[in-house]
Amino acid sequence: MVDIIRPTLVVNKEICLRNIERMALKAKENNLRFRPHFKTHQSAKIGEWFRLFGVDAITVSSVRMAEYFAANGWKDITLAFPLNILEIENINRLAAEIKLNVLVENNEGAKVLAEKTTHPLGVYLKIDTGYHRTGILSSKTNTINSLVKSISRNNKITFKGFLTHTGHTYETKSTDEIIKRHFDASLKLKSLKQQFKRKFSQVEISIGDTPSCSICTDFKGVDEIRPGNFVFYDLMQQNLGVCTFDDIAVSLVCPVVSKHLSRNEIVFYGGAVHLSKDSIIDQNGKRIFGRIEIKKNGENILLDPFNYVSKVSQEHGTLKVTHDQFKNFQVGDLIKIIPVHSCLTANLMGHFQTTKGELIEMMPKY
Amino acid sequence: MVDIIRPTLVVNKEICLRNIERMALKAKENNLRFRPHFKTHQSAKIGEWFRLFGVDAITVSSVRMAEYFAANGWKDITLAFPLNILEIENINRLAAEIKLNVLVENNEGAKVLAEKTTHPLGVYLKIDTGYHRTGILSSKTNTINSLVKSISRNNKITFKGFLTHTGHTYETKSTDEIIKRHFDASLKLKSLKQQFKRKFSQVEISIGDTPSCSICTDFKGVDEIRPGNFVFYDLMQQNLGVCTFDDIAVSLVCPVVSKHLSRNEIVFYGGAVHLSKDSIIDQNGKRIFGRIEIKKNGENILLDPFNYVSKVSQEHGTLKVTHDQFKNFQVGDLIKIIPVHSCLTANLMGHFQTTKGELIEMMPKY
Repeated sequence: MVDIIRPTLVVNKEICLRNIERMALKAKENNLRFRPHFKTHQSAKIGEWFRLFGVDAITVSSVRMAEYFAANGWKDITLAFPLNILEIENINRLAAEIKLNVLVENNEGAKVLAEKTTHPLGVYLKIDTGYHRTGILSSKTNTINSLVKSISRNNKITFKGFLTHTGHTYETKSTDEIIKRHFDASLKLKSLKQQFKRKFSQVEISIGDTPSCSICTDFKGVDEIRPGNFVFYDLMQQNLGVCTFDDIAVSLVCPVVSKHLSRNEIVFYGGAVHLSKDSIIDQNGKRIFGRIEIKKNGENILLDPFNYVSKVSQEHGTLKVTHDQFKNFQVGDLIKIIPVHSCLTANLMGHFQTTKGELIEMMPKY
Repeated sequence: MVDIIRPTLVVNKEICLRNIERMALKAKENNLRFRPHFKTHQSAKIGEWFRLFGVDAITVSSVRMAEYFAANGWKDITLAFPLNILEIENINRLAAEIKLNVLVENNEGAKVLAEKTTHPLGVYLKIDTGYHRTGILSSKTNTINSLVKSISRNNKITFKGFLTHTGHTYETKSTDEIIKRHFDASLKLKSLKQQFKRKFSQVEISIGDTPSCSICTDFKGVDEIRPGNFVFYDLMQQNLGVCTFDDIAVSLVCPVVSKHLSRNEIVFYGGAVHLSKDSIIDQNGKRIFGRIEIKKNGENILLDPFNYVSKVSQEHGTLKVTHDQFKNFQVGDLIKIIPVHSCLTANLMGHFQTTKGELIEMMPKY
């Protein structure tokens, strides 16, 4: 951290490699295609780290991100976002070059795909397994049948199967609940697979969230996993019980600029434009925007939860600290903030620095 | 909006010019130096719009932003962030080229400035007038005296006066409260000015927030205003009673991708990486991430507060709408989201498009 003078997102490559390897092994042991979501890092260079573990298929969240990774040598990409029909021409252009899969969940999308797809395209139906953000409820077999029929009118399209994001695992209070929600989602998808595999023998199930993929062990009937966040993990995952602090690969290194003894607060340079405004409620009911690691006598020390990022504004962050810890912060010190949500922090920062000082670029903003 | 196919931040130049003109006139009528904060737009081109109204002094929130605007012809810049002593060399380099002011609020900062400043530099003391984020309480005259003494040891430094950000105007429930907080902050600063002007005849008062600068009328004794957000305004300011919807100059144009009748929800392409996760609690106690404007029969219609952005995740936004409005949304429609906090939305998007389709670039991310 010698040369750091302003908020800097530091990534520990060794931890990333360990996280990738663990997930790749789990996929292999369970006969799952490992199609990691690259929206977390948005970086061609970090993408290369996945190739070391045999990854050749990826997930992205936008057409632009698909274009960026296609330009960086990825030839098998699932765009895991409800079809944006306004981008059909870009999708066609991309499908001409690589193996591309998209999601559909409504008649409007299916109609545009059926009428306008010009190159081989895989299509998954997005299923809502309880998160209730997007997707078709698995019980709506009439809708599902009608969408499958609709896209099948275009012979460039292959109906790939059923895809879900069990995002409601993020709303749990225990790892048991995560396992239950994963089990329930798998059941729903397996029932659909059962119904459709007579007609579509290749029909697949694809599931996605980092909490399930990290801690669950039963993936029978599932064909593919698409976790993304696990490459970095973060405070949100740690708070859910999904990872330990040792698994978290990114931290925002920030200079201390001010101390306020009367309220046990430390102000650092690092705010909503660096960390994002994402927060968690910790076990003690406090809203937290990050945890703190300090260096003392050459050692990195993770402070307990009574010391935390209590507020962020545009460029400022505020730490609430205990009276005992207050003296351990000096103006000009560099502290490490463990971000609540590493995807949003990486997206805001736009680049990384490795622990060895190497610059890692990300996808340009536009 | 013909060519828009993905989330796009549209800025209305006419509204910006009107907002700038109104504030410039107010400053002129009250004999105030108008030193707008450029962290809101972070754009050299939008900066030029301010020159039309005689602006030649600006405020920024980081050394990098100061460097960017200095490179774009701005020669008088206040860096309104607590001194980051790790950046002293960059500050010296910049001070060699332009008129630069910085803030100090503690001994550590004053010491570094006194010992290391190599070029003419203006220094303000940051005063805490009740927001309690940073700054010295105005009652702490011993600390203030000691800091002034400390920086005065270096003859390159000019002690400029007292600067505050009355950020607690954002926590108010009525415009009367904003006026009271502004009045109270002004009183505190004027008392300091009174005490110091015998020794420092040029001592100044600089105040900053958009709510006070927009609605207050009494600026007696104040020398300078530094509002930033007013160039765009946003839902937060409208909700505070500081501006009307007609004053809001930016909107995020987003494609509708999905509809869910059973829960009266519309999903659009546009999430935390576009809007930010900033939210407000509206008059009905609901947490809101944006308001909605739709086009119907060629007319732009702002929907009532029962239709609003209720959730954002990384790339998805969810609208909660009334049953009556549900039918007015179609997959593939472009809707306008009025952002809660235009500064954070602009920072995330990294560029603008004018209503006439012109691209407006911002400061690069690194």
